[in-house]
Amino acid sequence: MNISILAVGTELLMGKTINTNATELSKALNNLGHTVQYHLTIGDNPKRLESSLEYLLSVSDMVITTGGLGPTQDDLTKETIAETLGLKMQFNEEAYTQMIDRFKSFNVTMTQNNKKQAYLPEGSIPMYNDKGTAPGFIAEANNKIIAALPGPPHEMRHMYFKCLEPFLASKTTNCIKSEYINLFGIGESSAESKIEDIISAQTNPTIAIYANIGQVSLRVTSSASNEIDALMLLKPTVDAITERLEPYVIGYGEHDIMDYTVDLINQNNLTLSLAESCTGGLIASEFIKYSGASRFFQRGYVTYSNQSKHDILNVKNSTLETFGAVSEETCTEMIEGLFTNSQSDICLAVTGIAGPTGGTLDKPVGLVYIGVKVKDTIVIKQYNFTGDRTVIRRRSLLNGFFMIYDTIKKTCN
Amino acid sequence: MNISILAVGTELLMGKTINTNATELSKALNNLGHTVQYHLTIGDNPKRLESSLEYLLSVSDMVITTGGLGPTQDDLTKETIAETLGLKMQFNEEAYTQMIDRFKSFNVTMTQNNKKQAYLPEGSIPMYNDKGTAPGFIAEANNKIIAALPGPPHEMRHMYFKCLEPFLASKTTNCIKSEYINLFGIGESSAESKIEDIISAQTNPTIAIYANIGQVSLRVTSSASNEIDALMLLKPTVDAITERLEPYVIGYGEHDIMDYTVDLINQNNLTLSLAESCTGGLIASEFIKYSGASRFFQRGYVTYSNQSKHDILNVKNSTLETFGAVSEETCTEMIEGLFTNSQSDICLAVTGIAGPTGGTLDKPVGLVYIGVKVKDTIVIKQYNFTGDRTVIRRRSLLNGFFMIYDTIKKTCN
Repeated sequence: MNISILAVGTELLMGKTINTNATELSKALNNLGHTVQYHLTIGDNPKRLESSLEYLLSVSDMVITTGGLGPTQDDLTKETIAETLGLKMQFNEEAYTQMIDRFKSFNVTMTQNNKKQAYLPEGSIPMYNDKGTAPGFIAEANNKIIAALPGPPHEMRHMYFKCLEPFLASKTTNCIKSEYINLFGIGESSAESKIEDIISAQTNPTIAIYANIGQVSLRVTSSASNEIDALMLLKPTVDAITERLEPYVIGYGEHDIMDYTVDLINQNNLTLSLAESCTGGLIASEFIKYSGASRFFQRGYVTYSNQSKHDILNVKNSTLETFGAVSEETCTEMIEGLFTNSQSDICLAVTGIAGPTGGTLDKPVGLVYIGVKVKDTIVIKQYNFTGDRTVIRRRSLLNGFFMIYDTIKKTCN
Repeated sequence: MNISILAVGTELLMGKTINTNATELSKALNNLGHTVQYHLTIGDNPKRLESSLEYLLSVSDMVITTGGLGPTQDDLTKETIAETLGLKMQFNEEAYTQMIDRFKSFNVTMTQNNKKQAYLPEGSIPMYNDKGTAPGFIAEANNKIIAALPGPPHEMRHMYFKCLEPFLASKTTNCIKSEYINLFGIGESSAESKIEDIISAQTNPTIAIYANIGQVSLRVTSSASNEIDALMLLKPTVDAITERLEPYVIGYGEHDIMDYTVDLINQNNLTLSLAESCTGGLIASEFIKYSGASRFFQRGYVTYSNQSKHDILNVKNSTLETFGAVSEETCTEMIEGLFTNSQSDICLAVTGIAGPTGGTLDKPVGLVYIGVKVKDTIVIKQYNFTGDRTVIRRRSLLNGFFMIYDTIKKTCN
């Protein structure tokens, strides 16, 4: 099916909220083989909602709306959806029962505002809201479908996977398969120029390049009447690109350098400890994002001050004075101190100047030292990152992961 | 002006990239008093780009595009913009000079692909790309304006603030002012029902409610012919809402609980140390996000394993065995150990079960203990959060900040 996603919410147009819903839904819909045609965002304005729904339904088979289902007064979304499809609003018993259960489990009393939420376009399939109170629904008329999901991302996500995805899975006919080839250490432009001839020749599969801070991914997508044919179409192109870009390929699938690093740590049954200065817990936090991190993660130190570098990691005061907190020497002593404390198989230390202040002519903002010790191998690298404080910290994070990944690859085989 | 934002990039429709550009631009445009009407996202498809530009220009005075300026072959954005405005493409000397300078500073050789980037619609104002190579531009024809910005968020941001905002600032006539009232510890629905009569009576200023994980904000917006009148219109409504919701009001402006907490720490000249288990460095990282964190941040420990809780924070093995790592007792000993090590004015410890595994009947996923010590006051709270691993960690983070904020408020006056 061709599907468009319509987000309703003035807060999105005010720049108060990021539309992560469109991204999550698009990923899931593409995985099911549906095509996403448009993302459109409008304010809480019934007239604009009506004209947008009409336009999107004229080009797409289905529109998924997000937002506008909360108990606040400007929520005319449901009424407008019903009108667009030529349907009446009806009190939906099933939706109401779901809401009562939900409020009981919360130990919260329902208000009149909340009861309003059980009115849906006639004939709708209500979608249970696992994480909030507003029910969603799927309404159909004249071969067009509108599905309404709530706005808060965690409510939207749960409702989509529990109720809408099973409904959608049954509507797919053509089979689309894709493979991501993930690169590290090469820019978008250089990657493209190395495979220009392969891109020029693309028809089926197609190739698209996606660049993000620190990682470039190539998405190869094929289309066929069945899964096997689609996969067979993919393979030669994926192999050809891999051969061409070999030194930069870190892996396949919808993964990033952090996923690959955690996999490699687990495969080699290694333990990990961290000492962070400018990243200040960011690297630890990204490791502990992974459920099961307790298998490998032993300890992390956020040694932002010189005092803490000395007290906790035993970095010599003379080193800090002579070479400065941001220096290869300090980084080396941080690693040594971390290993003494933790005895972990992998030790990582980061010290740098994330800015915007603190830079000098000798040591500008963006100067970062990252040190990795994997068993007996120690590698210290100096980076000169560009970007603002957030970007510099993010680049430090990703390169920290990459240095762990790379050092394990080189030493643990 | 009425402005629409058009994002170009198949990766957005594939769900590979989040459209943060639309959010950032909307915030900035609203601040200038412009109205954002639509966000639209399309794939790398010149025909759809042309019809979308035509539609948006028929309802808006201006369209800002993001993306499609990179050196990859599917970048037909510029050509299509020129066509839509009835302009020819022209080699732009100024843009080319800017690019040469940029490449020199990178120490990178220009490719033929890159030179293509200096062709712009005739009469365009080129916008210098501080952070990348692709130049942006502003093109005007028939009283309609199209501004083209690059897709990578940090390139987009710098170009907007450096080149496009000064251009736009001169185009504002009506003055729009708004104030955010930020709440913590109350849900969207409850907040709304407490000020229902004020919302019902709204005309100018208007009131909008925005909910995010753990924080609700009310945006009060007025419109007048000059700044003083607009501000005068705001005040009575802001005061009335503040009075009604007083116990939950944490502050005003575009700030969150983290901003207020850091301000309060600095105002009171306090120092801070952290011991994190389930949040695993997330809280430290959010503190160190603030430039100048070195004034107050002393040290952070990521004590994810029982061993590290014992070794680093001196949590008794008997406590861990009898009460478990996620218990009030362990949380208390983490605080005490942290204070012994750091002697910081503020000590915060977090231990909890972020899931998805590790929960039991007695201690389900979402059980989190947060302890705060501010000088001689110790507060330990038990939370039962809902949501997935990411949400539980985020709620722990925000409530950790709030507990610091609240305890300082209560003890340091």
